[in-house]
Amino acid sequence: MLKPLADRVVIRPVEREEKTASGIFLPDNAKEKPQEGEVIAVGPGKLDEKGNRVAMEVKVGDRVIYSKYAGTEVKVNNEELLILRESDILAIVEK
Amino acid sequence: MLKPLADRVVIRPVEREEKTASGIFLPDNAKEKPQEGEVIAVGPGKLDEKGNRVAMEVKVGDRVIYSKYAGTEVKVNNEELLILRESDILAIVEK
Amino acid sequence: MLKPLADRVVIRPVEREEKTASGIFLPDNAKEKPQEGEVIAVGPGKLDEKGNRVAMEVKVGDRVIYSKYAGTEVKVNNEELLILRESDILAIVEK
Amino acid sequence: MLKPLADRVVIRPVEREEKTASGIFLPDNAKEKPQEGEVIAVGPGKLDEKGNRVAMEVKVGDRVIYSKYAGTEVKVNNEELLILRESDILAIVEK
Amino acid sequence: MLKPLADRVVIRPVEREEKTASGIFLPDNAKEKPQEGEVIAVGPGKLDEKGNRVAMEVKVGDRVIYSKYAGTEVKVNNEELLILRESDILAIVEK
Amino acid sequence: MLKPLADRVVIRPVEREEKTASGIFLPDNAKEKPQEGEVIAVGPGKLDEKGNRVAMEVKVGDRVIYSKYAGTEVKVNNEELLILRESDILAIVEK
Amino acid sequence: MLKPLADRVVIRPVEREEKTASGIFLPDNAKEKPQEGEVIAVGPGKLDEKGNRVAMEVKVGDRVIYSKYAGTEVKVNNEELLILRESDILAIVEK
Repeated sequence: MLKPLADRVVIRPVEREEKTASGIFLPDNAKEKPQEGEVIAVGPGKLDEKGNRVAMEVKVGDRVIYSKYAGTEVKVNNEELLILRESDILAIVEK
Repeated sequence: MLKPLADRVVIRPVEREEKTASGIFLPDNAKEKPQEGEVIAVGPGKLDEKGNRVAMEVKVGDRVIYSKYAGTEVKVNNEELLILRESDILAIVEK
Repeated sequence: MLKPLADRVVIRPVEREEKTASGIFLPDNAKEKPQEGEVIAVGPGKLDEKGNRVAMEVKVGDRVIYSKYAGTEVKVNNEELLILRESDILAIVEK
Repeated sequence: MLKPLADRVVIRPVEREEKTASGIFLPDNAKEKPQEGEVIAVGPGKLDEKGNRVAMEVKVGDRVIYSKYAGTEVKVNNEELLILRESDILAIVEK
Repeated sequence: MLKPLADRVVIRPVEREEKTASGIFLPDNAKEKPQEGEVIAVGPGKLDEKGNRVAMEVKVGDRVIYSKYAGTEVKVNNEELLILRESDILAIVEK
Repeated sequence: MLKPLADRVVIRPVEREEKTASGIFLPDNAKEKPQEGEVIAVGPGKLDEKGNRVAMEVKVGDRVIYSKYAGTEVKVNNEELLILRESDILAIVEK
Repeated sequence: MLKPLADRVVIRPVEREEKTASGIFLPDNAKEKPQEGEVIAVGPGKLDEKGNRVAMEVKVGDRVIYSKYAGTEVKVNNEELLILRESDILAIVEK
């Protein structure tokens, strides 16, 4: 299992079929393209200037939209995951 | 529904016909081109150095002008929306 | 009407004829070229680190000189205006 | 022995065979490629604005994933090691 | 008259003949070339983090050396002036 | 003798023969190449935001590894030395 | 006479002959090349965040080594001088 450092999160990208089901569709055009996924691990938050952890806005289980070119891909037990910083997450998709 | 993180907002871009009606017209020339739209979701604000949320200046329902090349396009239930940071919003169009 | 956010201002550029009258002439040469205009709307000021608004130095009615390539053009009711940050204003022209 | 300064750590990279065993596999494609290794030395942490050391999140013995192009290679007693900053470590691989 | 904003100053550049008289000569070679001039207007100073004005080091009447490529040229009543930030002033020439 | 300013240190680079003896060998390949040397002078430390000196982590006599392309070479009494910032030192080599 | 602003200093570069005499020789090779000179004027120091002047580490009369490409050349009374920031000074040469 991956335990991300600081303000990083581990994302399980959502398949395109699943995305259509949830009503979110990501167009294939000129602008920065976002992606949708599920948060499966959350870091402790980064430290502010006073040495306190900044609380994370996302939690495990959240469905999120993130910048397509953000983060680093890793494969764990044959599954492709993504490690990125919370600041690369644009929005939570609410049910 | 999208719940933007930090100081992000979700914008529903205004159609060009509608814009002419409101008297705002965005010229098609050399400078950075702004766009007009309606705010449909507002993040909680970014955290300042003391860990407090910075209040957002815009609210749901505001008609705003924003930088054309800012933000990320998403399509929700067949509608094209835009997620951008409040700092990419130039002005509120008042009635 | 436009209500600029943060430390932005709305400027009505001054026609070149009018500029000659006020005695300010902007040369057409190598350096960054300034422009002259009238402030017609002023934002609330940006927030400092303590969350207080920083008072704006310009006010509605001020005649100002600003950097030519700064800001974003918008057309409102057929009039061309400019939205820029106060930091792009170089000086106030006093009568 | 190496004693890293500030927030640096010394990493012993993990052989590719070993990595497959642990279930982590790093794909060979377009994005920034991470690497896996073992932490063998940890710096005292960087100083915050008040002159206090910021506690390190990793400790000697941790298995970690880090950015492939981060850090500096050194060879000690014929063994290749890597010195990098903690901020280049993406996640701890938990057993 | 020009009233510069923040930490800007208005400079009246000194003619080359006059410069030779004052004993300052600016070589015509490889490095960044400074210029000499007289301060004719001084802004109120920029705001520090606590919202206080930072006192300006130069005052009206000072003869100064400044970076050649800094600032913005304006022509007022047929006279060429320069608006620049105090940080572009290198030194005061003392009599 | 050289007295470095702020957080700078003066390093006497170690000859390649000597390095092999100490067991540290620096490979000649793709990544940023470190170098080994002895600290012969240490600055007073840089000032933090409160105007206090930040204590240096290295001291005269330390054997250190530093980034190859960091710093400035000087020759004193026919000996080649290197002046660099403490932040360019990666680790102390302990006996 | 020149009175430098903020953390700037005025340097009288040392002739190459003189440098050899003092035992410092600056090699003519690949790295950033330093220069040696004498401090002849020192600014009041830059302001820290609290508005206090940061004391300068160098004083008039110090023999210093500085980065070759730093600063701005000026000629005063037929003498070539250099105005640079204290941070471009690497070390004081002690007798």
